[in-house]
Amino acid sequence: MPNPTAAMLVIGDEILSGRTRDANAHYLAQELAKRGIDLLEIRVVRDEAPAIVSAVRALSSAVDHLFTSGGIGPTHDDITADCIAAAFATPIDVRDDARALLQAHYDQTGKELNAARLRMARIPDGATLIDNPVSIAPGFTLQNVHVMAGVPSVFQAMVASVLATVSGGAALYSQSVRVDRGEGDIAGPLAELARAFPEVSIGSYPFQENGAYGSNIVVRCADAAAVDAAVLKLTNLFS
Amino acid sequence: MPNPTAAMLVIGDEILSGRTRDANAHYLAQELAKRGIDLLEIRVVRDEAPAIVSAVRALSSAVDHLFTSGGIGPTHDDITADCIAAAFATPIDVRDDARALLQAHYDQTGKELNAARLRMARIPDGATLIDNPVSIAPGFTLQNVHVMAGVPSVFQAMVASVLATVSGGAALYSQSVRVDRGEGDIAGPLAELARAFPEVSIGSYPFQENGAYGSNIVVRCADAAAVDAAVLKLTNLFS
Repeated sequence: MPNPTAAMLVIGDEILSGRTRDANAHYLAQELAKRGIDLLEIRVVRDEAPAIVSAVRALSSAVDHLFTSGGIGPTHDDITADCIAAAFATPIDVRDDARALLQAHYDQTGKELNAARLRMARIPDGATLIDNPVSIAPGFTLQNVHVMAGVPSVFQAMVASVLATVSGGAALYSQSVRVDRGEGDIAGPLAELARAFPEVSIGSYPFQENGAYGSNIVVRCADAAAVDAAVLKLTNLFS
Repeated sequence: MPNPTAAMLVIGDEILSGRTRDANAHYLAQELAKRGIDLLEIRVVRDEAPAIVSAVRALSSAVDHLFTSGGIGPTHDDITADCIAAAFATPIDVRDDARALLQAHYDQTGKELNAARLRMARIPDGATLIDNPVSIAPGFTLQNVHVMAGVPSVFQAMVASVLATVSGGAALYSQSVRVDRGEGDIAGPLAELARAFPEVSIGSYPFQENGAYGSNIVVRCADAAAVDAAVLKLTNLFS
């Protein structure tokens, strides 16, 4: 059975303007790889409704799971929840279960659940809440879209909540071999190796160190024996 | 006149598998912001021809400039040049000008210009070469697509070459104000401020520090006077 597939949608002008370097996509990529869920695409779009809605529609229909980050806070530029609802033509309003979570939290901390904070309880009909142990305001899953916060500590906690409920696949077994020769020297034999092991993915990642060229060859497959066989052949080729 | 627009396409399984954290998109975002070119979208796709070709077609038709990184080396997984040619239905083969660059380089370094290295001289008909002062093998520009290497030092050198030839726009003037109150407290007045200054973009980026909530409010606009006026109002609101 093929592995489940995923895509990630990062929502945020601050990434596209160069102000912030996104950390969430890399974190998610690592978590998905551990669980055998194949991440097929990452997109970063602006805080603008048409861009968000069309990316949600395109990606959610192409993969098993779409993960989003960003745009679910209380300020005027937080429009993700409404865009997800629009993408699926689903009604959205303040929902009692989300409001109760916020009310309890703000009662406890002595803050007012004002109109801005109440925006964080806007949840599309039929969505399941995603637990936020860090700052309470929940994410949500609507159909195959998991909507999470952009603040990395909150994002990571929400990813853990979601991945506990999602089926994984066969995690890729991976070995990396360092070859102290430039890619141009090894590319021919490497292509032959790739043809000899069609089930195995063989990637070559060049580097420069002290003025000399080298490559890290990464061999990946769910079948560990196939990886080991390819790596044995590889080390014999270039030793 | 509106600013020129751009998109970035990162080609690389190593990013999606979580092995490598991409650095090129963030670098490009900063360089484009300095020049007043609006980066509208970033996508990361796998080293697979259908994914690359369809992303190139979608993005290049949506923006003024598409920048790509990755997949132009000598190994079997380097398929970007052929995918760009396919996206525009343009013939591609080893081109004399690119071959001459490589021949001179390998003659000088005493290495053989073998079949694998010659793949790096495959350039679509009608493309302009992008200078690579780091490791010689050139990138290229075909129509509005700038095709560059994934190795960050080479990518950065190629970005410099391309941006020297491209018209910029009005760089955004930006000011950041730190407010030591949670987003929920400031969201209402902030939304009013955004309505009062419709030409100005106001973003709110929450943080947590020593257990307390705060927000960095970023105010951006090509018109510096408008930014200053909004920031004055902002600091009066929250001081």
